[in-house]
Amino acid sequence: MKVTMKDVAKYAGVSLGSVSKVINKIHVKEATREKVLKAIEELNYEIDENARALKTNRSHTVALILPSIWHPFFSEFAYHIEEYLSKNKYKLFLCNSDGDAEKENEYIQMVRQSKVDGIIGITYSDIDRYVSSQLPFVTIDRHFSEEVTYVTSDNFHGGEIAAEELVKRQCKKLAFVGAISVYPTETQNRKHGFIHYCETNQIDFVKFTPLEPIDYLSGELEDFLRENTEVDGIFAINDLVALQTIQIMTKLNKKVVEDYQIIGFDGIRKNNEFPYELSTIAQPIEKMAEAAVQTLLALITGNSFEQRTILPVTFKPGKTTINNE
Amino acid sequence: MKVTMKDVAKYAGVSLGSVSKVINKIHVKEATREKVLKAIEELNYEIDENARALKTNRSHTVALILPSIWHPFFSEFAYHIEEYLSKNKYKLFLCNSDGDAEKENEYIQMVRQSKVDGIIGITYSDIDRYVSSQLPFVTIDRHFSEEVTYVTSDNFHGGEIAAEELVKRQCKKLAFVGAISVYPTETQNRKHGFIHYCETNQIDFVKFTPLEPIDYLSGELEDFLRENTEVDGIFAINDLVALQTIQIMTKLNKKVVEDYQIIGFDGIRKNNEFPYELSTIAQPIEKMAEAAVQTLLALITGNSFEQRTILPVTFKPGKTTINNE
Repeated sequence: MKVTMKDVAKYAGVSLGSVSKVINKIHVKEATREKVLKAIEELNYEIDENARALKTNRSHTVALILPSIWHPFFSEFAYHIEEYLSKNKYKLFLCNSDGDAEKENEYIQMVRQSKVDGIIGITYSDIDRYVSSQLPFVTIDRHFSEEVTYVTSDNFHGGEIAAEELVKRQCKKLAFVGAISVYPTETQNRKHGFIHYCETNQIDFVKFTPLEPIDYLSGELEDFLRENTEVDGIFAINDLVALQTIQIMTKLNKKVVEDYQIIGFDGIRKNNEFPYELSTIAQPIEKMAEAAVQTLLALITGNSFEQRTILPVTFKPGKTTINNE
Repeated sequence: MKVTMKDVAKYAGVSLGSVSKVINKIHVKEATREKVLKAIEELNYEIDENARALKTNRSHTVALILPSIWHPFFSEFAYHIEEYLSKNKYKLFLCNSDGDAEKENEYIQMVRQSKVDGIIGITYSDIDRYVSSQLPFVTIDRHFSEEVTYVTSDNFHGGEIAAEELVKRQCKKLAFVGAISVYPTETQNRKHGFIHYCETNQIDFVKFTPLEPIDYLSGELEDFLRENTEVDGIFAINDLVALQTIQIMTKLNKKVVEDYQIIGFDGIRKNNEFPYELSTIAQPIEKMAEAAVQTLLALITGNSFEQRTILPVTFKPGKTTINNE
């Protein structure tokens, strides 16, 4: 026979209302809470999530805002986000914002109207003023004001590792390639880490850091690479920029590994069955997704959460650096 | 001053109810409908989509069910689906089914409960029995019973083109590589078209068609390629299978273009800025997404629609076939 909330109340020696409050994360006296939790555990009571949603007026939906799902990093991230949400009985709204702040703001309004319970957002436009610590909002890769909760990978250390791995492989003149944004973004820490390593180790380097938006294939990057012929080790702000840099280097008759080595950032793959295409600083995409979902659900349900989660990155050698083992 | 529904009714000389019915696609006499539409046009009346949603009890949400968003073809398709839905003020639920029929069925139940207005589904599990012509459901790549509405590309002709392009490039012995499913799927037409071309043109060919699920890298495909050393032209059922075939051929010391040529199917790219990686039969992904959204919205709103839309495919030469121009 199924254990009911009544059984829990009786066993704990508290009122039915107290049990309900504990289940729905509403404040009760600590002693009462402990009695109820103990009874739930000992009776093996299973909380009916659907009934709970009805009572708490939750929609059990979360919006994921991405610049574009048509991007290997974001599609892997979205895959894992949906997976973890689904395990928690949440549905996912997908929004390609393409930097459209109005479209992003629409979902923020939906949270205000209780049509959506929370947002996981990778946003590059200026929605800072709409986002507050009250809003169940978890961001990746973007700080906003210090109040906003985020899950990110260790971008600064990733930049350091990239420089170190290039130097280990005999590169003498390094280059950083990656645009900067008018809004402070977490990805800029990749550059900072790279430069920090070069400066503290007295490694010669140049940098290509135009202001966004930039079309890497349009000529400016080509001019930069043409002017800096002695560059033999490149760190690109992400894997797609690394691939675009390779396209230009090929045009300039420079062969990867023989003439230069290059490391990207993200760790994109077609899916689990394929190897890393580039040598890259891989973000722990699945772990980031798991942490983002966990953090957001804690925010939604009023449980305790980490305001800042920073996960470690790892160097994954691919075909664009020499094998130095 | 904003034109109201009352103004339209007055101008058309009909009741307010008739105007409402026309706007909400409810049947009225043709003469009335024409009067109202004429008045709407001449007065430049803008239909308030939000008010309309409230009246029609629509959620203005659509679910997209995919095997996995972490797949280059599906992530591009999802990108365009969301884009077209957003233009039509619809929100998108994303579901990675991974072949989980229960997860797929959950969304079908949501349609029945009016929580979701319709589904665009790429489903490979057997949910045929849950899907009917009454349900606003548009499928890609899968027929179900004949009653279900679908948008697909011309898979059969794609298979013919692949064989023809390989033969044009001096391939003497062709091979088809691609698993078969216990459920009839549209992708099988790629194989049928390929075989049809080979047979009618008396081209020598072999085929590797194990039953799904198959891990292409596990050995069976390797055995097949090892046994058929004279194969110099391969057509793979999709781009990912083509890439896996190349991985195995590399292991067997066979070089693409020098020793064999290979054509995939789908036309995957990292995004718009990147070229096709493989020689491939490209599906018109954006057009398929547009047609799927158009068809589904017509189904939802009770407008007329095409039950079967078949869009043309094109050969996109990449780096895995010789240049024969």
